[in-house]
Amino acid sequence: MHAEIIAIGSELLTPERTDTNSLWLTRKLNDIGIEVKLKTIVGDDVPRLEETIRDAVKRSDVVITTGGLGPTEDDLTRQVSAKALNRKLEYHIELEDHLRERFRGWGREMPEINKRQAYAIAGCEVLPNPNGSAVGMYLNDGNTHIAIFPGPPREMQPMFENFVFEKLKAASGGVSIFRRLLKVSGYGESALDEAIAPIYTKFKDVQTSILFNKSEIDVELALRAENKEEANRTLDELRSEIVAKLGVAVFSVQGETMEQVVGRLLREAGKTVSVAESCTGGLIGSRLTDVPGSSSYFIEGVVAYSNEAKVRTLNVPQPTLDEFGAVSAETAAAMAEGIRERAETDFAVSITGIAGPDGGSADKPVGLVYLGFADEAGTKTLKLNLPGDRSLIRWRASQAALDYLRRQLLKAT
Amino acid sequence: MHAEIIAIGSELLTPERTDTNSLWLTRKLNDIGIEVKLKTIVGDDVPRLEETIRDAVKRSDVVITTGGLGPTEDDLTRQVSAKALNRKLEYHIELEDHLRERFRGWGREMPEINKRQAYAIAGCEVLPNPNGSAVGMYLNDGNTHIAIFPGPPREMQPMFENFVFEKLKAASGGVSIFRRLLKVSGYGESALDEAIAPIYTKFKDVQTSILFNKSEIDVELALRAENKEEANRTLDELRSEIVAKLGVAVFSVQGETMEQVVGRLLREAGKTVSVAESCTGGLIGSRLTDVPGSSSYFIEGVVAYSNEAKVRTLNVPQPTLDEFGAVSAETAAAMAEGIRERAETDFAVSITGIAGPDGGSADKPVGLVYLGFADEAGTKTLKLNLPGDRSLIRWRASQAALDYLRRQLLKAT
Repeated sequence: MHAEIIAIGSELLTPERTDTNSLWLTRKLNDIGIEVKLKTIVGDDVPRLEETIRDAVKRSDVVITTGGLGPTEDDLTRQVSAKALNRKLEYHIELEDHLRERFRGWGREMPEINKRQAYAIAGCEVLPNPNGSAVGMYLNDGNTHIAIFPGPPREMQPMFENFVFEKLKAASGGVSIFRRLLKVSGYGESALDEAIAPIYTKFKDVQTSILFNKSEIDVELALRAENKEEANRTLDELRSEIVAKLGVAVFSVQGETMEQVVGRLLREAGKTVSVAESCTGGLIGSRLTDVPGSSSYFIEGVVAYSNEAKVRTLNVPQPTLDEFGAVSAETAAAMAEGIRERAETDFAVSITGIAGPDGGSADKPVGLVYLGFADEAGTKTLKLNLPGDRSLIRWRASQAALDYLRRQLLKAT
Repeated sequence: MHAEIIAIGSELLTPERTDTNSLWLTRKLNDIGIEVKLKTIVGDDVPRLEETIRDAVKRSDVVITTGGLGPTEDDLTRQVSAKALNRKLEYHIELEDHLRERFRGWGREMPEINKRQAYAIAGCEVLPNPNGSAVGMYLNDGNTHIAIFPGPPREMQPMFENFVFEKLKAASGGVSIFRRLLKVSGYGESALDEAIAPIYTKFKDVQTSILFNKSEIDVELALRAENKEEANRTLDELRSEIVAKLGVAVFSVQGETMEQVVGRLLREAGKTVSVAESCTGGLIGSRLTDVPGSSSYFIEGVVAYSNEAKVRTLNVPQPTLDEFGAVSAETAAAMAEGIRERAETDFAVSITGIAGPDGGSADKPVGLVYLGFADEAGTKTLKLNLPGDRSLIRWRASQAALDYLRRQLLKAT
């Protein structure tokens, strides 16, 4: 089955905003084996909206609209969709009563303008809105399922889940899409594809997508199937083979972020960590503490941006800075040792580098980053050359540091 | 003049990705007085793509497509757009030669498959691609301007700027949209609207939009006009009146971020800053150092997540923690004084709060945040109650801290 999604509202045609409801809807539809073939974003424009709905209904099995159900004159979806479907609008006194009651619940009288929201397309099923004043509509017109929702996600999503999802699932014949997500660090896109192509090509029914994010690669496995157990078995088998091939480079098979994985490893081991940052300026600490409950393992961070701070707060020896410079393996090691001693943690990670755009040289170019790791067994360092602009280098450096910490934790715990 | 934008490619119909080229194009088109009336996202699907292009050309003055010009079988834009426009595809030997040459420049032989990229729609102007192998096409078909671009932004954008922008600008009759952007902190959306509506409603030709972001409000002024001087005069007058009304709450009139503004103020005054963070975990330091050149004024940050860290590194007196708790005005003040003394900076800012989801109480609920500010004149604190989930509270807390710093800097320097 094929779907089209129509997002309605002139604010979605500005340079600042676009439709994002369709991403959520697409996942839901894909999950029950329905493919999205076309998306339209149309403003408060009668002829274009009418033509869009007419065309969609003519050619697609499922048509979903979002937006344009508010009480003002701009909100055209009710009238125009009725017209495009060659149906009338019907007035529902019980909807008006219900609206008046809700407004009273909010301590206000219903403005007369909201009466418009008591109209629905003749013959449709009215879909109650738990979180707003605009009801939705569902109808089956010939062979096409048509669902009309308000625009705000917190209104649209429960309405879709509660009143439309099961209908579409039944109509699509019980086929579902099952998925697995693996997150991989430390591989380039082509090297990763080369490594796992011999595996995933054996699984002809599974669609394997490799998506490069700014510092990690997501490998998504999707399988369209009727039988849940069989599908899960196939996907688990493929996933296991990929994990066996890539080993520790797979940092998550549950959709966790890198900082969540690091946090879980620390919590499971009952260990603590501290960080000493230079070029990332606090980003590593910020990411680690973005995880709820991180206070049980994250103790202290120091952003030693100046050399003085490195000396006075992290005990980096002045001769180390003089001889090797702030961006060096030696300084990274001293930073990790310094914060570990200060914070009295099991582990410590440090970072120093050149994020640019200025400050690079032939010897030490922009993107040069040293990581340090200290625990009771000693101190290690790692040298990296990261591509990108300042923000991207900083992000990638924080990701590399967290990944370095993760790999050391796996060895140490 | 009215435009439609068509984004082509099945990858844009997945749950993970959608078209974003249209946002950039919309701003460019708006700037020359062309309104975008409809956007379509269509996959590698011949009938739907053909119908989409046909409909668009029939009803709009400008039609722009992006994507689908690659060398593989999935890339349908060339054939299908030619068919929709009732034109033939023509083979250009000079394009093939040029492609072969480019591939040689990359140290490879051109794969035979890339020959497809040497075809162009009959009668079109071929648009060279400075950053890729797919050329674009432009044609004026009856009254409609049609421009066909590859999908990658770094290929599409210079091609639009270099070969299409001036044509459309001339056709749209020299009308442009002039803009001003003001960023405001410390106001709610309705309170802000109430404050400035009496001003902007006097300027009937200017479209004033108030957009709430996660911790600030953008006020965008847009004026469609022919005469540049006159438009700039009107916008500057309106902007001045708004700034006069809102005062220090307007933190940027040039599109700068809060951290850029704070950085500029520090640089202009030749002063230095340090930060002591608890609930934000390094986010304030990370934002301050995201600005190139921040090492000239940002000296040191401490993420004192545990109470021990507050005592040992920031010299917060243990009795202060015992009596008032870690989340208190007294602790915030001691943290600011402690980091200022340690880092020997002119100014210091501190933050302590409860980001949630756990850790709140009736007395000290999730979202309670104390800010501290220390300089040679003494120490001040500010109490806030911030709404949102953990990430949003942390972001808003960092924004409030930077804004607090900004306001103190304006008084102190």
